[in-house]
Amino acid sequence: MKKIAVIGYGGQGAWHCGQILKSDVCTLAGTYDIREVRRAAAAANGIHVYGSNAELLADPQVDAVVIATPNDLHEALVISALEAGKHVICEKPVEMSVASVDRMVAACKKAGKLFTVHHNRRWDVDFMAMKQLAASGQIGKVLNLESRVHGSRGIPSDWRGEKEHGGGMILDWGIHLIDQILQIFKQKIVRLYCTCSHITNQEVDDGFKLELYFEDGASAHVELGTYNFLPLPRFYMQAEKGSALITDWKHKTHVAKLTCWVEKDVTPVQNAADITKTMAPRDHLTLDEYDLEIPQSDVHDFYRNFCLAMDGKAEQLVTHQEIRRVMSVVEACFESDAKKQTLEVNI
Amino acid sequence: MKKIAVIGYGGQGAWHCGQILKSDVCTLAGTYDIREVRRAAAAANGIHVYGSNAELLADPQVDAVVIATPNDLHEALVISALEAGKHVICEKPVEMSVASVDRMVAACKKAGKLFTVHHNRRWDVDFMAMKQLAASGQIGKVLNLESRVHGSRGIPSDWRGEKEHGGGMILDWGIHLIDQILQIFKQKIVRLYCTCSHITNQEVDDGFKLELYFEDGASAHVELGTYNFLPLPRFYMQAEKGSALITDWKHKTHVAKLTCWVEKDVTPVQNAADITKTMAPRDHLTLDEYDLEIPQSDVHDFYRNFCLAMDGKAEQLVTHQEIRRVMSVVEACFESDAKKQTLEVNI
Repeated sequence: MKKIAVIGYGGQGAWHCGQILKSDVCTLAGTYDIREVRRAAAAANGIHVYGSNAELLADPQVDAVVIATPNDLHEALVISALEAGKHVICEKPVEMSVASVDRMVAACKKAGKLFTVHHNRRWDVDFMAMKQLAASGQIGKVLNLESRVHGSRGIPSDWRGEKEHGGGMILDWGIHLIDQILQIFKQKIVRLYCTCSHITNQEVDDGFKLELYFEDGASAHVELGTYNFLPLPRFYMQAEKGSALITDWKHKTHVAKLTCWVEKDVTPVQNAADITKTMAPRDHLTLDEYDLEIPQSDVHDFYRNFCLAMDGKAEQLVTHQEIRRVMSVVEACFESDAKKQTLEVNI
Repeated sequence: MKKIAVIGYGGQGAWHCGQILKSDVCTLAGTYDIREVRRAAAAANGIHVYGSNAELLADPQVDAVVIATPNDLHEALVISALEAGKHVICEKPVEMSVASVDRMVAACKKAGKLFTVHHNRRWDVDFMAMKQLAASGQIGKVLNLESRVHGSRGIPSDWRGEKEHGGGMILDWGIHLIDQILQIFKQKIVRLYCTCSHITNQEVDDGFKLELYFEDGASAHVELGTYNFLPLPRFYMQAEKGSALITDWKHKTHVAKLTCWVEKDVTPVQNAADITKTMAPRDHLTLDEYDLEIPQSDVHDFYRNFCLAMDGKAEQLVTHQEIRRVMSVVEACFESDAKKQTLEVNI
C-alpha cells in the first residue's frame, strides 16, 4: 500500500482523503491546509494533520502527494513536492498556462518522479459511454460531438470567481470537458473558436462555448453554462451511420442507427405552418433505435493506475502530452475569446 | 375577394393553390408551370392552367401573383409581374443577394404595387410561443436564443442541391429560421459567425450553424441539420430571470422561472464521477416550472393581411426592410463560412 498525503483540505482535498481512506492500493498519510478551520475539520474526521507543507513533504513515509489548493498555487507546490522526492498528483487545472506546465514537466524529469493531473471525469459514465460508442464504430466515424453541462447557480462565490487564483469556468469544469473531448478526438485541432459569458461575473468567465475543428473535418462543441435554468442534453453525437444522445449523465445512451439511406422520393409531412420533405421523419425500415447500457466505472482506477505507475508496472493514465494539449486548448480559448475570432492552431 | 394567380406548380406552388382555394379573402385565378407534367397535375386538380406566364400576367382579372419557382428565377419573374401591374408575393428565399432584393424593391416602387415575401413560418406555433414569451417579459430580457431544426434525409435531390438554382439549406429552411430570429431580436447585429456542413452535398450547404451577436450583448444560435438521426430540442431560451425549452414543434413551451437567486452556500451533489456545487440543481423554493399553452395560429392571416394591404387598409406584414435584413444576414453567412472567421457587421 502506497502512502499518500493531501495538500489542501477544501472540497476537492477532502474528497481525495475520503477516496484514499477507502482505497485498496493506498493509505492516507495525512493532510495540511493553510486555513485553521480546514485543519480542524480534517482532525475532526480523524485524519492526521501535519504542522506545515514542509513537514508533510519531509515525511519519509509519504510516497506521493496530492495538490488540491487554489489553482494559482499549483506550480510552486508541485515543484516543491517533486524536489522533495515525492510523486505528485495535481488537481485540475494543472495551472493557467502552457509555460507553467512545461516548468512542472521539467521539474518532474529532473526529479525522476511521477507527475500527473487528476482528470477524474474520465470516469464519468456519460463520457465513457460516448468514448466507447465512438471506439466501437457501430455508427461509424464521429463527424461532430457536442458536450454540454448546464447549471443555474452562477459561478461559485469563492476564489473560483477571482482571476488571480485561476477562477472561471474554463479552468474549472471546462478543463474536464476539454480533456474528455480530446480523449475521443486524437487527431490534430486545426482551428478553434471560443466565446465566454459573463452573466454573473465580469472578472472571469461564468460559462463558455468552444468549437473545435479537427484536421479530418470532424468537429466538437464544448459548452459550460451556469445560468441555464433548464439543461440541454449532456452529449449529442453525429456520426457517419447514425446519431446518439445522452439526456442526463444518469441516463442511458440512445442510439439511432441508419440501416438504409433510401434515395427514393419522400412524402412531405406537416411541420408547424408548412409542409416539408427535408424534415420528414424516418421509420424503423431505415433507422434502428436502441439504448446502450450505462458503462461500469470506478474512480479508484485512477489511484490503482498511479500506484502501479510508481512501481514502473504501468504507464500513467493521464500523460504529460495530454496535460499539455488540454492546456494549449485552454490558452487558445482565452485568445479566441479576447480577439472575438476563430484561431488557426496546430494542437 | 382578390384574384391570385400562382407561377410554378411544384410543391410550394401547389400548397399556395390549395390554401387560396380555401381562403376567405382571395380566390385562385389559375397557375402556370414550365413543366408539362406539373400543368397536367394542376388541371387534374381542377385548377385553371394558363398557356404561359405572359398570358397569366396579361389577365386583367388577376390582382396579385405568387412566384413559386426555383430561387434563381425569382427576380426576373417578380419584376415582370410588377411591370404587368400585379401585386407580388414571392416565395422564400426572395433571391440570392441583397443587390437582387434592391432591384426588386426599386421595381416595386416604380410600379406602385405591393411586393412581399412568403415568410409563412412566422405562423409556426413553436416560433410564435418563443416570440410571445420574449415579448411578455415574464422571464425578463432574452440573453440567448437557440433555434434548431434537425432532419436526417440529406438535401433534397432536385434543384435544391444545385448552386446555380439557389440550392442549399441556408436559402431553404435557413431563411425561415433567420427571419424568425430577427422577428424576436430587432436590435442591431454587430458580429456573426457561420459554418456550413457538406455531409451529403459538396456543391451547396446541407446544414449550417450561425451565431448572431447583437449590440446589447444578446446572442442567438440558428442551426439546420439534414444528417441528424436524433433531433436536439427545437428552441432553447436563456433569459435574465429563467430559461425556456420547446422539445418539438408540437410540444408546449416548458418554462423554468427564477423566483429567488439565493447566494447562501450550496450543498455539493454527486455528478457522475465527482461532486459539484456549481451544477447542484435548484428546487421549487427558488425555481418555478410550468408549461405555456400552444399559441393559436392561422396561416391564412398572411393572405388576409396582403389582401387588406392591396386596398391600403393595412401595412404588409413582411416588409422590405425585413426582407433586406434577412438577405443581408444570408450574404454574411456565406462570407463568414468562406473566410472561416467571424464577421463584424452592422445589420
